[in-house]
Amino acid sequence: MKGLFITFEGTEGSGKSTQIQLLARRLQDSGFEVRLLREPGGTAIGEEIRHTLKHSPANRQMTAEAELLLMNASRAQLVREVIRPALAAGEIVLCDRFYDSTTAYQGYGRQLDLNQVRSVIDFAVGDTRPHLTLLLAVPLEVSEARRHARPPENVVQRDRMEEADRDFFKRVEIAYETLAAAQPGRIRRIDAAQAPSLVEQAIWHEVQALLELHS
Amino acid sequence: MKGLFITFEGTEGSGKSTQIQLLARRLQDSGFEVRLLREPGGTAIGEEIRHTLKHSPANRQMTAEAELLLMNASRAQLVREVIRPALAAGEIVLCDRFYDSTTAYQGYGRQLDLNQVRSVIDFAVGDTRPHLTLLLAVPLEVSEARRHARPPENVVQRDRMEEADRDFFKRVEIAYETLAAAQPGRIRRIDAAQAPSLVEQAIWHEVQALLELHS
Repeated sequence: MKGLFITFEGTEGSGKSTQIQLLARRLQDSGFEVRLLREPGGTAIGEEIRHTLKHSPANRQMTAEAELLLMNASRAQLVREVIRPALAAGEIVLCDRFYDSTTAYQGYGRQLDLNQVRSVIDFAVGDTRPHLTLLLAVPLEVSEARRHARPPENVVQRDRMEEADRDFFKRVEIAYETLAAAQPGRIRRIDAAQAPSLVEQAIWHEVQALLELHS
Repeated sequence: MKGLFITFEGTEGSGKSTQIQLLARRLQDSGFEVRLLREPGGTAIGEEIRHTLKHSPANRQMTAEAELLLMNASRAQLVREVIRPALAAGEIVLCDRFYDSTTAYQGYGRQLDLNQVRSVIDFAVGDTRPHLTLLLAVPLEVSEARRHARPPENVVQRDRMEEADRDFFKRVEIAYETLAAAQPGRIRRIDAAQAPSLVEQAIWHEVQALLELHS
């Protein structure tokens, strides 16, 4: 059997990281080989890029274009060094964020040209596309409250980031809803404002459907 | 007066670095404000990217796609943080390598899809294009002899790099000739196998013509 590639998407505070770990454990308990990844990072090169994006003293000056290209450099490396070999070996690859995050955060959020964003993503990933993307959707008010408790995870932190805060994250939310509406087959929207156990159940329902389809 | 943007291109051992410094001095002596840059690098972010490209212990595993995206991340930052402000201030910007290097080394050299390479470059630079590109051309035998005396400058050093050595650099040479033939207005080919003083004179001739055009 060829492997399966499942990505998790959503705004901050949607519970992605908790849910992806719950799914990983459940799949492992069912006997699957699971590879749990996050973006940016996941390779030695990618972790260096992650450091430049997140922790460099210079990253307050980083342009939106450089940010997008760095994200995709990390992704290009992850796809070829880890994801493709894992899929070829029949593993289930779970990735905490993938290219929909770039479209949402850099494309819609930072308002870069969406066709250019798509071209860069296409170059980075080639034909390696998720079989299933789980969008954990929470109302903006919920993610906002949770976000204030910790730093945002998929954007470089800058002064202008903080200033533009609410408008930016509103655009990200709209982006995810737009993407989900345009690709209802691949992107399954999960109501993540529910109790975590119900979210887990809804995710497992989608993954089981995918497993049946590919068995 | 708005500034001028001049790039230097060529294979290893073409004398680019020496000649760009000679031109910088001559322009400064003529009273121009000169900004001397190199790629990748030239900004704090770009120097971090340069380190990942050149000195990371992991860079032997780096894919051609990640390499191209990292080069262009550094470039996107350089264009917006340094080149555009310098041009707006009326300076003459000299850059040791720019996007033609990416087309030559990553596009032709590593045989990536040229349309995709062009899309990524377009995204990185926007409408910031060199007014003049000086291609310092030396026969492959000359650059080969000089290259063996020092490591290649615009590609990640890897085992497969060394193996593919001659074919790779032959493709890079062909790329430069193809680019120069396609854009004879912007790209001026200089015979760099001549004595350095004659190369310097030929470069000055081209730059004077550009200065007259823009004065």
